[in-house]
Order: sequence, then structure tokens, then C-alpha cells
Amino acid sequence: MLTGIPPINPGASIAAIDTPALVLDLDAFDRNLATMANALRGSGARLRPHAKSHKCPEIAKRQIKAGAVGICCQKVSEAEAFVDAGVLDVLVTNEIVGAAKVHRLVRLASRARIAVCVDDARNALELAAAAGDAGVVLDVLIEINVGADRCGVLPGEPALTLARTIQNVPSLRFAGLHAYQGSAQHLRSVAERRTTIERAAAAARTTKELLARAGIPCATITGAGTGSFMFEAASDVYNELQPGSYIFMDADYHANAWDGLPQFEQSLFVFTSVMSTPTPHRIVVDAGLKASSIDSGMPVVSAYLGLEFVKASDEHGVVRVADNARMPALGEQLRLIPGHCDPTVNLYDWMICIRDQRVEAVWPISARGALV
Amino acid sequence: MLTGIPPINPGASIAAIDTPALVLDLDAFDRNLATMANALRGSGARLRPHAKSHKCPEIAKRQIKAGAVGICCQKVSEAEAFVDAGVLDVLVTNEIVGAAKVHRLVRLASRARIAVCVDDARNALELAAAAGDAGVVLDVLIEINVGADRCGVLPGEPALTLARTIQNVPSLRFAGLHAYQGSAQHLRSVAERRTTIERAAAAARTTKELLARAGIPCATITGAGTGSFMFEAASDVYNELQPGSYIFMDADYHANAWDGLPQFEQSLFVFTSVMSTPTPHRIVVDAGLKASSIDSGMPVVSAYLGLEFVKASDEHGVVRVADNARMPALGEQLRLIPGHCDPTVNLYDWMICIRDQRVEAVWPISARGALV
Repeated sequence: MLTGIPPINPGASIAAIDTPALVLDLDAFDRNLATMANALRGSGARLRPHAKSHKCPEIAKRQIKAGAVGICCQKVSEAEAFVDAGVLDVLVTNEIVGAAKVHRLVRLASRARIAVCVDDARNALELAAAAGDAGVVLDVLIEINVGADRCGVLPGEPALTLARTIQNVPSLRFAGLHAYQGSAQHLRSVAERRTTIERAAAAARTTKELLARAGIPCATITGAGTGSFMFEAASDVYNELQPGSYIFMDADYHANAWDGLPQFEQSLFVFTSVMSTPTPHRIVVDAGLKASSIDSGMPVVSAYLGLEFVKASDEHGVVRVADNARMPALGEQLRLIPGHCDPTVNLYDWMICIRDQRVEAVWPISARGALV
Repeated sequence: MLTGIPPINPGASIAAIDTPALVLDLDAFDRNLATMANALRGSGARLRPHAKSHKCPEIAKRQIKAGAVGICCQKVSEAEAFVDAGVLDVLVTNEIVGAAKVHRLVRLASRARIAVCVDDARNALELAAAAGDAGVVLDVLIEINVGADRCGVLPGEPALTLARTIQNVPSLRFAGLHAYQGSAQHLRSVAERRTTIERAAAAARTTKELLARAGIPCATITGAGTGSFMFEAASDVYNELQPGSYIFMDADYHANAWDGLPQFEQSLFVFTSVMSTPTPHRIVVDAGLKASSIDSGMPVVSAYLGLEFVKASDEHGVVRVADNARMPALGEQLRLIPGHCDPTVNLYDWMICIRDQRVEAVWPISARGALV
């Protein structure tokens, strides 16, 4: 709904939150910010959290206050929303292709510190021409494929070739390597994640050394997600980290093993209400897949033994009630832990922030739906 | 983005549509409206299409112009968006529970024809009290469980008991039965869908006859989706039908068999662009799961042999390129058929309507994000 009117006012009781609603537990959120700052203290790696998870300038500002050097975005329109809100140091961890988007990107670079990734010489030259026309110098990082098999040139020679192209145009500044290993994040065991990141770091190291021998220094080597950032931080290669989900967590991340790693708490919930109690073993809640994304599994009912969210349709969630569980009442408010935080946040215009059983603030999710 | 500014102007070339974008082919859409009207001509069943699929008042108005008696919604806030836009006959095909929502529902009933479903006597009395306070008489349908095992009382005696409760309060008017069999819609064979709907119709018929013997007429018996509506129309029970997806279609519906049934065309697309061409057999497009919902399977690349969308992450789509396929160019615009139309539409604020290679109109998706 494009009304611009927050769904509830600060000071209201949490019982007054109408459902479904996206709710942030501020105490848990604050502890997650502190846990990350503590985890990285002394590591030598800067934190540049990914804002694709929250799309919320209020959160970006709190991350920066807690020590982050800026943020990451995936889309030009997402970056615009943050720059408009005063977040002035953005790495777009993605390729930006095509005249319309490239024009928006270089325009943004005239009023904020913007860096962008490339994996193709033609795209580098497209960026260079637009940056030249706009009279800006754009920082570019080369994305290398360190195992996720999505975007990126191969490590080694292909990266060197592309770096030389970038160095040959005055409107681009070669800023380093983007070496994100996304497919490591949800490997369940700590050992698997560590090994996978060690391989990614080795590929980044080889490329960095090759570039160094050609006289091209890599100021920044960036990557990492919530599932792996301690391994990138412990490497001698990565000096910037871009985890996003750590502030919220979700059911998919909780399914990872975390032995010996920093522990983040669930701070993000979808509040839902019981709308039907047709049998003693089945209830239906008012949050379906338009309220909590199911791409990475079903949401989990928080702090309620014996309730299992088993099926989501567009606007309904079917919850199985175990034999020994208390039957929820019709209308009762329940809390869901989303299966995947990022696309769930993207379903909402507002984040309702609670503390001590009250609504403390309502934050606009300014980059919700920022797709281009 | 809450700007209220359409992403493109009418008259623009389709090549100028920046991606990802939600695009409606108006010729195909118009033919789908006509196909549905022709299919139901003479059946005796009224069409009340489900607006949860499109969330767009411009579409609702065209459906009504093509013969629909009104629309269905799932949520109070969704119904509000349509009533605000002048669509004044809405069946909420869902239970509305809790003081805040019930208050909004009865307020809406003072300025439009509103009906709602119930499956619980406590909820019926909650609605009755609010309607009484507001001085309105609310039409209510009893939802019966005809096999989907979601909401709904069991057919037969439980429905009769609830109907008597409704008849005993002057602020409610018993309007009939809601007998939607959602789990029939994507059974792949025509025979399976027909058989499943015959069972649902039998349960609705039994209940209707029981109510008739108790002197309680069912004015309306409603149900059906795009996958099954011809079977409800052919029954002697259903007199109102609520398909939604027929105007758009999606990959999940195309996977159904349609032998002998009316054929609808794909009219809804997610336009995407190639953002990376890392290998001869893998390209990456700029539409991931925030641009095309994957709850019912991956999107399908339209009208392009040898491209298979194999993996969606938040902002990326990985597309496999077959040996014999033409390699798409960096920046090339492709058309995706969403896996599931309803949640995909809900990701966008605007629907870009095209005809003859031009943008003809841009329609606001006014009920996007209308969750409560």
C-alpha cells in the first residue's frame, strides 16, 4: 500500500500490532550489532554490511555507528534509496549493465562514494564512457568466480586482463576484487564452510599476487556472508566483509552449525494471528507466502512447543499442532521466524521495532521493491 | 519504492523498459478476458474473479466490464484498496478475525457490498457485534472444507449448526457456502482435477440439501480456480466462480494438461536483462527471487529455445544455455514467464502494459503488500 502512513504508532502495546507484520526486536538487534563488532575487533577486516537484507536506511545508519565503513547494495535503485537517506558510501556488489542503469549509477557517484563490480570488458568500457561524460571517476572491483558459479571472471589471468582494461581508462579507478562465495553460506557444518572459504581465499590470493606482479595493487578484497565471515576475516586476503543477515537471522541460518563461532540471535519476526482452528491438530494463521518468503524453507513458530508451520499458500499458513501442545486460541498472536530474511523484508513497507513489550519506532523499508 | 512515480511513460518503446519489470501483454490479456466470458456463457454460473492475483483496480474494472459480478479478495486491506478505487462489490473469501480487522471490514460494508467467510461461531458473533455497532448487515458465507484441509468447517451438520448461529443474529445475513478446493488446481491431469471437483461438489450439494431441509436457502455457492472452474461450472451446485490466474497464466498452470478445456495465453511477463555472460553455457540475468517468486518453481524463459532458468538467488537468475542455442548478448532483454503469478505481482508497484511494441499504459498495483 503506497499510503506512506506507518501501520502503528510508537508507544503502542505489541498486542496492538495488526498482523501480518514485520517486527524487529531491538534488544536482540542491538546485541547482534555488538556481537559483530566484537567478532571483528582486531581482525584487520573492515565491515561493510549488505543492505539487501534490510533495505532500511535507519538500520544502515546504526551499522555505521557500530563501526561499519559503509554498506553494500545489489541494485542501482537500492543504492539511490540509501544515498537519498544520507548513507554516502555504497559498494554495489553486482554488475550494472545497460544505458539507463549505468547513467543512474554515475549520477549517484557525483553525490556519494560509489563503487561497482565488473566481470566484462564491454561493461567496463560502458561504465567508463558514462563516468567520463559525467565527469566522475568510478571505483570498480573485478568480480572473480571463487566457486559460486554465478557472475565473475575466472581467478588469475582473466582478472589480470580485465584489470588492465580498467587501468587504461581514466574515468575508472581499479579498486580491488569482489570474491564472494555465496554457496558456502548455508553449508551446514562449520568444517565445510571453512574449507570452502579457504578455497575461495586461495583463488583470491593467487589473483592478487598475479596483479601485484603486474604492478596492479588490490586495495580491497571483499566478500563473506553471515555463514562464513569469520573464515574470510581469518584469511590473509580479505580486508572487507559484507555479511547482511547477522542483524536478523532466519530459520535457514539457524539450521547451520555454529560451534565456536559468534552467536547471533533471532531479532526479526513475522507476527501472525490464528484465523481458523478447524481441528485439534490443525490451525491456520494469516501469514502465507506473501508474508514470509518460503524460498529457503517454511517459517518456524518461535517460542511455542509443538507448533509446526507445514504449508504456506498465498495468504494462509497451515500449522500442525502436536498432541501434547497447548491449542492456540482463535485470534492469538504468534511469532514466526522467517525461512529467509532478505526476501521476507522485501514484502513489507515498514519494520515495526519493539522493546519492552512496546512499539519503540516504525522504520520505513525505503528500498523495498528497488529492483532495477 | 514509495515514490508514486510510474517507471515509464505510455508511448515508450518496449526496448526502453528498464528491468526487472512486470509487463502485461494487453492483447493476450484481452483475449483471456474474452475466453473466460465465452467459456461461462450459458453455464448459469456467475464470474467473480479473485483479485488476489492482480491486486490492480484497473484489471478488476475490465473484468467487471467483461461480465464479472464483482471481485474476490483475501484481506481486508486488499478489499479497501479496491473499494477506494470504485470496485464496490467484494467477497472476502477468508475468515476475518480480531477487533482491528473486523472493525475495518464493517466500516467498509457501509460504503460497498461486502461479504465475508466464517468457519467459527465465535468469529460469527464477533462480526455480528461489530456489524450491529456499525448499523450494517453483513453478508456471510460459511466456508466448508471440501478437501483442501485448510480453513472451513466440515460439510453437513457442522455447517448447519453454524448457519443457525448466523441466522439468529440480525446484523448478519446468511449468504451461502464457500467451497473452494484449492488443492485441485494444480493436479496435472484433467481427469484428476475433474474427479476432485466432483467430490467437492458432492460435499457442497449434501450441505446445501441439509440446509434446505432446515429451511435455510443457500443463495450462493462459490469456489473454483483457473485449473478447475469448468468442472464447478458444469456442476449443478456452484453458481459463482472465483478463478484469478486465468488473466495472466504462469509456468505452474502451463504445466497442467488442458485437453478439451478453454485455453488461456501467457500475458504476464517479468522482463529481465542479461547482466553477465561468464561462460558459453551460463548467463546471469538481473531477475532473482525478489523479481519472480519461486514458490511454485522457477520462471521459464519465453520464446527462446535452449535457455533454461535453473537457479534464482535474491537478485540473480542463473540461466543455462544449451549447446545449440543462440548465446544471448550482454544487456539483452529477455522475457520470463513467472512460476507463480500471484506472489510475483505482489513484488511490484506497477504493471507496465504493452501493445504493438509500445507501452500503452502503466497501472498501479494498488493492493500490493496489502497483508492485513
